[in-house]
Parts: sequence; structure tokens; C-alpha cells
Amino acid sequence: MASFPHPLDPLSPEEISKAAAISRTVFPGISLNFRFITLKEPLKHLLNPFLAAEHAHQPLEAIRPPREARVQVITPSDEGKPQLHELIVDIDKAEVVRKEYLEGKHSYIDTAYMQAVERACMADERVKNEIEKLKLPEGTTVVVEPWAYATDGMNDTSERTSMCWFYMRVSDHPDANYYAYPLDLCAEVSERLQVTKIYRLPSSPDERIHNEDRPYDHSKVRHPSLTEYHPDLRPAPRETTKPLHITQPEGPSFTVQGNLLTWEKWRFRIGFNYREGLVLHDVRYDNRSLLHRISLSEMFVPYADPRAPYPRKGAFDLGNDGAGINANNLRLGCDCLGSIRYFDAWHNTSTGEPMKLPNVVCCHEQDEGILWKHTNFRTGNAVVARARVLVLQTVVTVSNYEYIFAWRLGQDASMEYEVRATGILSTVPINIGDTVPYGTVVAPGVLAPYHQHLFCVRIDPAVDGDENSLLVEESVALPMGDDKVHNPFGIGYVTETKAVEAETGLDLDFTKNRVFKIVNEHKKNPVTGTPVGLKLLPSYSQMLLAHPSSYHARRSEFGAHAVWVTRHDDEEIFPAGRHTMQSTGGGGIASGIAARREQGTSEATSVRGKDIVVWHTFGSTHNPRIEDWPVMPMEKMVVGLKPVNFFGGNPGLDVKPANARDGCSVLVEGGPANLGGSG
Amino acid sequence: MASFPHPLDPLSPEEISKAAAISRTVFPGISLNFRFITLKEPLKHLLNPFLAAEHAHQPLEAIRPPREARVQVITPSDEGKPQLHELIVDIDKAEVVRKEYLEGKHSYIDTAYMQAVERACMADERVKNEIEKLKLPEGTTVVVEPWAYATDGMNDTSERTSMCWFYMRVSDHPDANYYAYPLDLCAEVSERLQVTKIYRLPSSPDERIHNEDRPYDHSKVRHPSLTEYHPDLRPAPRETTKPLHITQPEGPSFTVQGNLLTWEKWRFRIGFNYREGLVLHDVRYDNRSLLHRISLSEMFVPYADPRAPYPRKGAFDLGNDGAGINANNLRLGCDCLGSIRYFDAWHNTSTGEPMKLPNVVCCHEQDEGILWKHTNFRTGNAVVARARVLVLQTVVTVSNYEYIFAWRLGQDASMEYEVRATGILSTVPINIGDTVPYGTVVAPGVLAPYHQHLFCVRIDPAVDGDENSLLVEESVALPMGDDKVHNPFGIGYVTETKAVEAETGLDLDFTKNRVFKIVNEHKKNPVTGTPVGLKLLPSYSQMLLAHPSSYHARRSEFGAHAVWVTRHDDEEIFPAGRHTMQSTGGGGIASGIAARREQGTSEATSVRGKDIVVWHTFGSTHNPRIEDWPVMPMEKMVVGLKPVNFFGGNPGLDVKPANARDGCSVLVEGGPANLGGSG
Repeated sequence: MASFPHPLDPLSPEEISKAAAISRTVFPGISLNFRFITLKEPLKHLLNPFLAAEHAHQPLEAIRPPREARVQVITPSDEGKPQLHELIVDIDKAEVVRKEYLEGKHSYIDTAYMQAVERACMADERVKNEIEKLKLPEGTTVVVEPWAYATDGMNDTSERTSMCWFYMRVSDHPDANYYAYPLDLCAEVSERLQVTKIYRLPSSPDERIHNEDRPYDHSKVRHPSLTEYHPDLRPAPRETTKPLHITQPEGPSFTVQGNLLTWEKWRFRIGFNYREGLVLHDVRYDNRSLLHRISLSEMFVPYADPRAPYPRKGAFDLGNDGAGINANNLRLGCDCLGSIRYFDAWHNTSTGEPMKLPNVVCCHEQDEGILWKHTNFRTGNAVVARARVLVLQTVVTVSNYEYIFAWRLGQDASMEYEVRATGILSTVPINIGDTVPYGTVVAPGVLAPYHQHLFCVRIDPAVDGDENSLLVEESVALPMGDDKVHNPFGIGYVTETKAVEAETGLDLDFTKNRVFKIVNEHKKNPVTGTPVGLKLLPSYSQMLLAHPSSYHARRSEFGAHAVWVTRHDDEEIFPAGRHTMQSTGGGGIASGIAARREQGTSEATSVRGKDIVVWHTFGSTHNPRIEDWPVMPMEKMVVGLKPVNFFGGNPGLDVKPANARDGCSVLVEGGPANLGGSG
Repeated sequence: MASFPHPLDPLSPEEISKAAAISRTVFPGISLNFRFITLKEPLKHLLNPFLAAEHAHQPLEAIRPPREARVQVITPSDEGKPQLHELIVDIDKAEVVRKEYLEGKHSYIDTAYMQAVERACMADERVKNEIEKLKLPEGTTVVVEPWAYATDGMNDTSERTSMCWFYMRVSDHPDANYYAYPLDLCAEVSERLQVTKIYRLPSSPDERIHNEDRPYDHSKVRHPSLTEYHPDLRPAPRETTKPLHITQPEGPSFTVQGNLLTWEKWRFRIGFNYREGLVLHDVRYDNRSLLHRISLSEMFVPYADPRAPYPRKGAFDLGNDGAGINANNLRLGCDCLGSIRYFDAWHNTSTGEPMKLPNVVCCHEQDEGILWKHTNFRTGNAVVARARVLVLQTVVTVSNYEYIFAWRLGQDASMEYEVRATGILSTVPINIGDTVPYGTVVAPGVLAPYHQHLFCVRIDPAVDGDENSLLVEESVALPMGDDKVHNPFGIGYVTETKAVEAETGLDLDFTKNRVFKIVNEHKKNPVTGTPVGLKLLPSYSQMLLAHPSSYHARRSEFGAHAVWVTRHDDEEIFPAGRHTMQSTGGGGIASGIAARREQGTSEATSVRGKDIVVWHTFGSTHNPRIEDWPVMPMEKMVVGLKPVNFFGGNPGLDVKPANARDGCSVLVEGGPANLGGSG
């Protein structure tokens, strides 16, 4: 064990405490609200020599990069308006090396803040009065759900603002599904927890926000079997599903040493932070480098209902909420089956103490069907290798919604990023009998507005080194005939490949079999003669529908194209900018590219044979169906990376062929059923 | 047990024998070569009343449709040219009700025929002489692989022709990978097993077929570790993968009665025939009809190498080979893990005896991760239901290639058709050092030409009845502003839906979130107010690249568009036509539509609110990578169907939530790893 943490290790609890203490020294006498204390990852030019030495088993101590924390704090100000600061703290030297007042920027929101907003809202006399006027059914409980305010240009303020949506529970059960009863009431609450506005929501297509008193339509109340998801509130579940057990009598095939994970021929480091959640660093297969770093870097969930105040529903679920801080405490047998290793992570309390995030990552193996097979039809002999995958899973709750994020590594050096969307639809009230063209009525009086989920995976490749290029390859029919090219029968096609020269955003096109390859043009595969590489298996998705001049579009620049390529920049991790809360746009990936293009030489934006970053935007245009109600069966999206002419052959060829005597599979009694038997 | 087979049961062995005997009566004194004896499925207008009565538990005997076999036979003719006939045999009445001489049509090929062609080829003196001239390395064995001849207009003959490709094994082992050693020799063999042509293959980009003597380049021979897949011929495999066991101590959750399968709320009948392999009939969920019939209906694998004779490489793997007849005998623990039920099917020998196809389908359950989850962030209480899927799998070997076909049914009434491509690339010789733009050099002297795999799934829907429509829905941004529509913030979008009125082919467009819905416009969901339906989750794929006027394109009309909709026709099951062997085009789905459009009234081609069939073409443009060599890690393609506003809510809501005490998951020892610990 080294005497110092690995540069990519997240901060330990002791380091968090120490960073807090160091931070306090630059704000003497001020009570700090610590928003986050997280590893500031080393600058790549300092990290790379360390990693090179590590892989070469050379001494490391002398070349280790500074151990730094990135700290965000809110200080109270004289005028009462809280102020946001970011510090870079050198932990070993015990000094603050940078301190920045983030004027006009806002911190993310968390459960504690949302609950404080809810309490403030419910304590407000005007709110109480409005609730009174709704004349809700007896025995119901009002629930307030504060959301980050998505900039709409109407009420932009220098203060962090929450939009409070009102719901009710019709049962005493604390887990009763209040999203089934959206109320047509809305309040805005300031960062200082003051209710600044109250109004009634539009309840029909042509209605706008108003202050007309209208009681709640009691006919909207439905039988619990139609609205509840919690088993306490539901009829008995189906009992037809027999148990299925997954066991690994000899334990799992992976090894964890600190944050280093090795499995089959994979080797990588696990990182975790409050915002991105799980991060994979220094990803190698069979001792060859594939990726420097990969993570989900942002998400945007804009809603399509054009009526105010709904344009304020547009959630940056990483920048505004955090995939790490909202990660579920995963449970054995529920979230993951089999032989499971859990990982805890550490965040901090508002007072700067370390706070454990228990079981936020589960790691386990799955059987994944057939990896490869061939039957020699002459001999009848079959050889089949089954696929094992390593799964690293995090489940994130963002208010009503859940995301299940999983990295899935294969024995053939392929990897997948799988996203499952589940949870409960965000709902708004609608009059019984009305419909709108931008939402689905999922229950009487309950509108589930259309929305998009746009994810952006940041891929910092290291394909046999840092000097990589992005190639765009298309499959193109040869012209028929024998004049220009030899294609007399009209069946020929070829691939055409172009290297992307400058930073840009690009689109997918399956009609051309457009393939994005991240390659090292300096390293040719000795057999194929082509550069070694990885190819992206994208998720084909509609990009952002909001108008380019809208705040939604200006704030989520990454939503305009499916693939982006940029030069690596240690500070460019977030494609909608570091500060997304109430952002007004211009801080995202497209603006970064435009600024560099304007300011720099062509060298500054050149991405051919450079240290590049590739970003993939994907997601779903989610126009709810009633089958998504009251809790949504998961919708799966998958992005893949596969080696392409990187190795000398199938990297999973050495997987041991399956043997009928291995394992404990059994024949279901009754013998083989006979498809030609009588019925 | 009924006293008669269910109308959808495949023929029993006894029925096969009986159909053969009846067939012989119309060819007295002639020795018949029985190509197939298979169920002629009942006409839908006769079947539907039977199914309706069955579901209503009414008497069935009186309304059962005739039990018929479709029989294909080859007879020897006087001139020596074999003749192909199709018979329809009424089994109960013991009579041939139709007899047709299929002039100019050709039967599919099978292993026995291929081996006969190989023997004829190897026995030919001129072939022996050519092999001699190759001066192959000592101890090697020449292997001939006959392929169906893909029409190229150059050598079209009224006889079935085989293209014989030559390879060699460099080991005595019968499973040595001869595809690693393609030889530049080619022969054409007639149906009467005569070698009609011999020539040498092009070995460089500009070379054409020739008869120049050139010895084999011995430097192409490689170490077995680079070319072999069979474990007997490989270095020891990796031993790092620990066992993983899947058990169902109480047995599986499904029930099989004859060919009727019930699982969770699903109920359907399993069919199987020599050509399509697995077919699902009368598919219902929770007693509501979803599909009348669904199957893989055709595949086309055209190769892109424009040099003769490679335009003759274009395989209709169903029409020319058969997904049923080439289905593997699946092995417990190898092809499927857990509690497995196997199904045998029946084909026939060439003499008309029943022939068992053992274990051609495996049926089992899989855990499929999280089905739905919600964590109430206020209480911290999580409810999670895990997904169980039912898998019906067939593995098909077509010469070098394997396809793994699986129907996967979910507890949320979703279904998937998963295709995995694996096996060995089809290879051709190339001079060491040469490259071509339409193939990948996967080993010295071994070219793996580019090719496409185009699959077509035929979906005969029955969404709450037969009168269905195909809707095309797109998500469209509202114009920004407040003039024509209310969208002042520019964030609104709506769905626009059009019903397809007439038979046609349509394309995918993810940029518009184009969704294809199969609906019953007569049945509205009482809550959403929209027609009940299923939506297609397509596999985004490049369509056929061959020139529209090429034989490839004319023969595989279904490859021109991703989605087709036609009026149901009992005889229109195969989108490239019933007879694909050496077909010359004009018999496919587009020709069918065109003919009906020309001949019929608009009513004849109307598909709105009619008994329709929807066809989905998908696949891959497979430009091999060296990682696909010498055996290819599976490439997965998935097509889905999901209910859309069909039910009253999440159909999987009643799945019992997972309980941490259920199952036998275990913590991996070492306790929770700590992402904030020191490395």
C-alpha cells in the first residue's frame, strides 16, 4: 500500500475534514455552508507521467501531482443575499491555492434545501389560504415539490429560485403517490426561503396562469389500485413468478484493491463525485490503454408544455441536482442479484464534516448469453463461449424520476453504458375531459407532459496513447457499371473515411452507416493496415426540440448534436457548463468551441492526432404512454464502445468454451416438448 | 386433450408420414425426393373463428379448419433435369387438393445436398488437377464449401447451381478452421452434380477471374493461435472466469401444454417450420390479443466485393437455407443457462420419413435487472421490482455464420426480438500486401469482404382484433412565438400523427422521433382518449446498398425500406417471395404491392382499419474488424414492441417488489469498498 492516496482516489473522509478546515481559514469568523468538498482531479499533464510510471512499476512518490480539493461554499452576505465561492485547496500543503467569488452563479439543490423550501412554503399564510380555497377532499395531505427554476427570461433574478409544485396524498401512508394528484397551485420561493409569488396553473389548453379561485375537482380521486405503486397500498401482487437464484460458489471474478478494479483483462480506477456519480479512469484492456476517463457528464430534461410557468421545467439533473449526491443506497437482492460488491462514497455535510453515501455503486457479474459460437456443419461439433459481463451500477433519484446507470464491460473488450429511465412521471393538473397535444392524460385530471431526456457521455479517449483522432466512416454504394470503378453488377460498396480536423458537433446518420471511430493514426494494426481504434455504437435519438433561441437550447448546447469533438481541457468536463443552476446560456460546449475558434489559431482547435475528447449526446423524446403510469417500466438506452482493428483478433477468443457439465443448469421436467406433437 | 391437433400445431411425425404417403399417390411409380412436408397453416378466415371459439371455451371440433400439409418434391425427369412440385395435401381426407409444377423455381439447399456437391467437386479430375497446381503445403486438406448461386445475370440457368469455394485445413483436426485458408480456386456445379466451370479467383484489386496457374503462397500459413477457434487447437483458455450458476429451486414460471405456452400474463402458441424456424401465434397478454402471428420472414446477406464471381455471394438464409432446418441442437449449460425446457421439431427425410430436429428451441427465464423503481426522497423508502424475461431461443448455422434468434417477453407486456450474429466470416483469398476498399484483411492473405445482413420480421398484428391501422407519429417543435400557436418561450413541441392509408414502404427517422404505432382505431383507451396500440421499437439500420437495378436489389425488395405495411394475404409470408433460390426478382413485397395497386381498386390496397401486416427490415452493414476473427464476438440487434395506451397502466405494476431477504445474493467478502479510501 502506498503511503499516499492514488491521484485519482476520491477524497477520503479525513481529507474532506482537512479541506474544510483549510477552507475555513480564508473566511475567518464566517459560518460556511459547504456545498461540496470533492477531489480536484490532477491536471492531465501532471497525471499522465504518474500513470506511465505506475504502469512501468517505477517509483511514484516524487512525481505525484498535488492533492487538491475543489470546495464550494455559500457565505451569508451583509445584504442578506448569500454568496457563492469556489476554493481550490492543496491538502498536503494545507493552503487555499485559489479562491473565487462566483458572482451570478448558483449552487445546485439538494434534498435538505428542497425540504427547507417545502417547509417555508407550507408555513406561508398566503399559501395556506390558497390551499384552503382548493377545498381538498378530507383526509388528504398537501405535498410541495420544489424544483430548480429553469431560466425562461421572465423572472430571472440574481437569487436562486425554486418553483414549488403542489400535490396531495389521499392516504396517510407516507409513500402514497402524490404525483397522482397534482394541484393547480404554484408558488415561487427565493433562496432566502421567502414565498415571492403564488398563482393558479393553467388547467385547459387555452388557459393561462391566473388567480381565480377554483376548488379541486373531487371526481379526480381514483381507486388506489390505479394510482399507487407502494405494495402497502396495492392489491396483492402476482405470485406467478418463481424464484431465480444467481450464485457464484467460488466468488466473483473481479478484484478490488482500493479503487483499482481488475476483471478478466480489464483494469481501471473507479472514481465518484457528487455531480457525475461514477467515473471510470485509466481504462485498459490486456495492458493496452483505451480510455483516459469516461463519465456521464450532463443530463437535461426539458418539458414541452408551452404554457407558463411550465417552460421553467427543464432540469439539469447533474448540474442542478447531482448524480452522485442523489445516488440510492443499493440493496442486495433488490437492485443487484448475485455476488455483489458495494462501494460507499463520501460527500460532506453543510458544516464540512464527511458524510458517507452508503452502497452507491454495486459491482457484480452477469451471464450475458452467447458470446460467440460456431457449429461445424460437417462434423456437427459446436463450440460456444458464454459471455460474462461486469456491471457497475448506480441508481439515481431526482424527485419523481429514477435513472439506472450501468457500465457494462465485456470479455471481448467491448463496453456499454446502459441507462434505464424509470420512476414516476412528473404530472400537472388538467380538467377532466380536456386534452393537449403536448402531453398524455394518464389518469382523470392528470397530465403527463411530453419531455425529453438528453444525456451526454464524455469520452476522454487514450487509444494507445493520447494523440487520437475522430474518423467519420460511411458505407457508400459504388456507382454501377465498369467506367469509373469496377462494379458491373451494381452490388459493390466501399467505406469512405474522413478525419475530423477541427472541434465541432456532428450528427448521426444510420442511412449511411455513419460510424464514429476514435483512432490513433500513429499506430497501425499490422494486419489490417488501418489505425487502431474504438468505435462508438451510438444511441439514435432525436436532439433537443426547443427553438435554438430559447433558453432551453442556449443552456443545453450539447443537445444540438449527437457527437462532439473537442481538444482536451482539464476544466471542460461539463457540456452545459460548470454552473447550470439558472444559467442563461453561452457556457456550454458549443460556446467553448466558438470562443476557441475566434480567439485561437487553427492549431488551438485542431483535433487531428491531438489529445481529444469525444462527447455523445443521446436520450429519449418521452411522450408518455399510460403504461408508464403510475410507475414507469424501465426504458433502456444503450451506448457502446468496441475495439475496431485495435487487437490482433477476437479479444474474447480465449474465453473458455462452455461445457454442458459445468454449471448447474437443469432440464425442466416433462422432457423435451414436441413441436410436432398433437395439441 | 382434444382428439385432434390444434390447427396451429406443426405436423406430427405421423402426419408427416401420412402426407408423404398421400403425396406418393399422385406420382405413381416415381421415386420422390421430398424437400419438405410442413404444416400449411389454416386460412385466416377459417382459423379466426376457431381461435375465437377456443378463447370462449366453446366446442371446436365442428369448426376446425382442414388439416393440410404443404409438400415440396423433386421428381427426376426424362431429360435428366429434375422437376420441382408443390402439393397441398388434406391429411384428414387423405387427398392431394392442389398439385403445381414449379417451372423455373428451385428448391432450397441443405447439408446433404452441399455434401453431395462437395463430393462431386472433389471427385472431378479437372478439379483435382487444379488443386495439384496450387502446390499446397504438405499435410493440408482441401475443403469445398458450396453456396447457393446468387443470380448475377451472367450464368442464369434453368438448373439449380452451386458456387464451390475452396479452402484448406492445415491440421488433421476435423474442426480446424478452414476459413482461415481460402484458396484462389472456384468451381460451378450443376444440380446434376456436374462440374461445369473451374477458374481462379481475383487475388488483387485489379485482377479478374482467370485460369493462370499460380501456386499457393505458403507464407500465408499462420500459427494456430491466430486462426483456430476450436479449443483442441488453441492455447489454454483464460481461467479467470469464476463459475456463475442460475437456479430456479421451485422450477420455472412458465407452463407448456402441447404447443401452448403460458407465462406470467402471456399466452401464445409456438410454431416451427423448416424455413422460418420459430413462429409465435395468437399472442395475448392478460387475455387481450396483441399479435396474430410473428416470425422472422427472410434474411438477405449480400456481399460487396464487385469482382466476379463475388456478386454471386448473396444468401437468402431463410429462403435458400432455412432457419428451421439449420437450427442447432442446443445444449444445456452452453446455449442456455438455468432451468431450461427444450423443444424438438420435426422435418422429413428426402424419402418422406419424419426426421427429428432435436432441441431446436430452448425456453427459459432470465433476470433482466430492474423493471421499475421509485425511491421516495422524503421517506427514503425504495420500492423496486426486478424484471424477469421469458426467452425462446434458436441458434442457426448457415455454413460459416451463426445467428442467435431470441424472442424475449417482458412482464410489462413488452417484447423484443434479439438477433446475435456470430460464427466465422466468409473469406476469400488476397495477395499478401494488397488491400481493397470493400473488405478487411483479417489475416495475411485472408480478405473478409464487406457485407450486409438484412433481416425482415413479419408482424401480423391483432391489436384487440384484426382491424388495425399503422400510424406514423413524429415529435415536432412548435414555431416560437405567440401568433399561430402559443409557444412564447420556444420550448413547446407536439406530436403529429398520420395514419397510413395504402400499402407502402416507409423509412425510419430518429431525428423526428418517428414512431410507428400499430393501433386499433375502433378501440380508444378510455383514459388517454387515443386508440389502443403497440409501438415498434425499430433497429436503426442502413438499407440495401446494392443498386436498385442490380439483381441483389430486385431479389430482396424488402431491403429498400425499414417498415412495410400490406393487407393480410395468407400466401404472402415471405418478403422476397416464396422461391428465392436463383430468383430473378419481381416476386417480393414491393412487387406484390405494385401489382395490387395496378390491378385492384383503392380498397384492395387500403390498410387503414384493415387486417394488415407490418414488416420491419433491419440489420447491419458488416464491415469486418479484425476483432471479428477467427470467430466473431456476437453483434446484437434488437427490435421491440411495446404497448402504447393499450392497457390501463403499467402492466408490470403487479410484479412483486423485490425483497432483500429473497433470493440468495451475497455480499462479496471484504465489506463495502470505500471510494474515498486511500489507494
